[in-house]
Amino acid sequence: MNVELMSVGTELLLGDIVNTNTAYLSKKLANLGINVFKQTTVGDNPKRLFQALDMAFKTADTIIITGGLGPTDDDISREVAASYFGYELIYHEEIWQQIITYLTHNRKGVLISENNRKQAYVPEHAQILTNHQGTAPGLIIEKENQRIILLPGPPNEMKAMFEESVIPYLRQYSDKQFVSAYIRFFGIGESALEMKIKALLDSQTNPTMALYAKTGEVLLRVTASGDNEAKCREIMQPIIEQLQSEVGEYIYLIGDERVAETQTEMHRVLAQLLLEKQLSISVAESITGGAITSSLVEQSGISKVLKEGIVCYSNQSKVETLGVNADTIEKYGAVSEQTAREMVIGVAKRLNSDVAIASTGIAGPTSDGTDKPVGLVYIATYVKGKVNVKEYHLFGNRALICERASRIALNQLRLHILDK
Amino acid sequence: MNVELMSVGTELLLGDIVNTNTAYLSKKLANLGINVFKQTTVGDNPKRLFQALDMAFKTADTIIITGGLGPTDDDISREVAASYFGYELIYHEEIWQQIITYLTHNRKGVLISENNRKQAYVPEHAQILTNHQGTAPGLIIEKENQRIILLPGPPNEMKAMFEESVIPYLRQYSDKQFVSAYIRFFGIGESALEMKIKALLDSQTNPTMALYAKTGEVLLRVTASGDNEAKCREIMQPIIEQLQSEVGEYIYLIGDERVAETQTEMHRVLAQLLLEKQLSISVAESITGGAITSSLVEQSGISKVLKEGIVCYSNQSKVETLGVNADTIEKYGAVSEQTAREMVIGVAKRLNSDVAIASTGIAGPTSDGTDKPVGLVYIATYVKGKVNVKEYHLFGNRALICERASRIALNQLRLHILDK
Repeated sequence: MNVELMSVGTELLLGDIVNTNTAYLSKKLANLGINVFKQTTVGDNPKRLFQALDMAFKTADTIIITGGLGPTDDDISREVAASYFGYELIYHEEIWQQIITYLTHNRKGVLISENNRKQAYVPEHAQILTNHQGTAPGLIIEKENQRIILLPGPPNEMKAMFEESVIPYLRQYSDKQFVSAYIRFFGIGESALEMKIKALLDSQTNPTMALYAKTGEVLLRVTASGDNEAKCREIMQPIIEQLQSEVGEYIYLIGDERVAETQTEMHRVLAQLLLEKQLSISVAESITGGAITSSLVEQSGISKVLKEGIVCYSNQSKVETLGVNADTIEKYGAVSEQTAREMVIGVAKRLNSDVAIASTGIAGPTSDGTDKPVGLVYIATYVKGKVNVKEYHLFGNRALICERASRIALNQLRLHILDK
Repeated sequence: MNVELMSVGTELLLGDIVNTNTAYLSKKLANLGINVFKQTTVGDNPKRLFQALDMAFKTADTIIITGGLGPTDDDISREVAASYFGYELIYHEEIWQQIITYLTHNRKGVLISENNRKQAYVPEHAQILTNHQGTAPGLIIEKENQRIILLPGPPNEMKAMFEESVIPYLRQYSDKQFVSAYIRFFGIGESALEMKIKALLDSQTNPTMALYAKTGEVLLRVTASGDNEAKCREIMQPIIEQLQSEVGEYIYLIGDERVAETQTEMHRVLAQLLLEKQLSISVAESITGGAITSSLVEQSGISKVLKEGIVCYSNQSKVETLGVNADTIEKYGAVSEQTAREMVIGVAKRLNSDVAIASTGIAGPTSDGTDKPVGLVYIATYVKGKVNVKEYHLFGNRALICERASRIALNQLRLHILDK
């Protein structure tokens, strides 16, 4: 199967949005062992989309279109794809009812407009893919050896539909199985890691390996191909063991593709550790401004252990809510090892938590009126009475410093709990 | 001038990186009044790149290639573009000296490899574009009425070169100026907004207008073309006034392209309102888990008004830290209008803030042990003694419900402060 990905939308041609759908689909298809030969983006223009389909089918047998399935006049993918194969559009009352049900249940107060009815028109012979996250159904239409798969443009709708309906459909066209493991590293840069495992990287053809830099951490993809999943895992196993022995101290997670798409999984790893060990946690955040706590709550069930987060941006909050001594702030400054230590003890004692994190630092763009540099950060962690405070010097803009400080803090508590 | 953007790189076809160059170039070209007809991505494969150029020149007269100018064997753009026009590659000693100088000054410790010498070969008749951020020079080659502009793939190198060398080159092909305004709407869906302003949308050719759905809000682009910027603004003005009179209640921001790239600007608009009116704020977050506070701190200078955020995930925190009556939680539940009201009053009074927000709700995936539905959210806002509590029914997964609740909360406080 030779695939061309086609994104439809004038907003893409104008640069109003970045196309993330294409990278997502390309990666998923690569994992299925399916080749993407080309990616194309065209505007909401029926003639040009028709031409693009015509050109694409010169080299590809399968075109996956994202976007242009909405209810407005600009949404043309359904019509053009149908007309390319010479198919009529047929009104499906049951799709219209599904759309009404979806809008009634999920968008209370939103007017159901007659526009939406357009989405109930479907090319004849089409396989209809249910959309649980929106109103536009996906479609697969085939003619002779060619097929067009139409998916909605909004990434959440597209991804859910691809996972649920398109992957099972595509599996029949792939004879090799591919299995990937994703290893996440923290505390080592991409180049340094590459140097350490270069011999291993260079010597392998199955599994193949590739390093990717994420913000503040590194991801290693290990992909084996074989006749079945068990065989793939057998091929991968010794390589993973070798990595654990050589650079295991930096590895914080080994998982499947679900752990590969994000910039970090550190918050989930810590949240799961807290749940598993039943450790209650409180957090005191100055520089990180809520980022630590809000990343922890992404984990469902966290309410069992998360007692409280205090975003103590003001000194008043540090003193009155956390019980930091006003003299400590006066003498050493709000950004100091001493203040961080009192913050973490204060927040742990408040509601009597087993573990705690505190962050204080200077995110910039300017310093705090002292001669301390932008990027200076203190992270304090607390585990059942024991306190650990570390000083970091981070770089980047305000948002990046805050993000890095928050991940370092999560990792510092993780290592503290594991006594590493 | 009709442009096709062509990205070259197998890493893009594998989905290993997201293509941000294309959105950047598209937006820059749109602002120059130059049409991008299509965007294409191909791998590091000479035959396919040649074919892609051939297809592209059927509709475009100008192709901008990004990527494939590096020193390795995989980097083929220079060779293929030259051969497409039938041009020879010629070695330029002065480019080689520039490369050596660049590497010596900027990449201390990096070995200068003979590979790099490849980057000193340039097609005959080419205009050479200096690269101040890396080793690969950019190139412009022309033949009859066709031209290929080659730029390096790393975004920082590409952007610097585009600004410095390509914009001046392209200006000679554009006689019109384009100016865009971006209007952000909250509290109305894309379809409903389109229905309300359909007559206006349909009747306009200059300015042109386009609607974009963002997560939980809508963006409207209004673009005027004219001989100069003042003329463009004059053309736009009556349309913007008409929009304000027809759907002004949903408009929360009007700005230039800087306000168009994000999913939301609501947190910045509220933060700026607080700073402007010098209103101190405290936040009590249950369902939103820190998202409200951490979005506010993205605004530099917010420490002047942000007193404290409490992520009161546990009932213990709601009672002990915020002073919610335990009986209220017992009687009405943690997710109730009554608890939200006591939370917002409690957090406002703690450090005596002018305004406050409180959120409580059920993010899912399961309910809280009561018969209340996932997606039920109460947002309470407090402005100098006055309390406002509203009930919402949100949809989507855990992360989406949390994100929506947080934006709704920011907007509710904004309207409360503005007494709307």
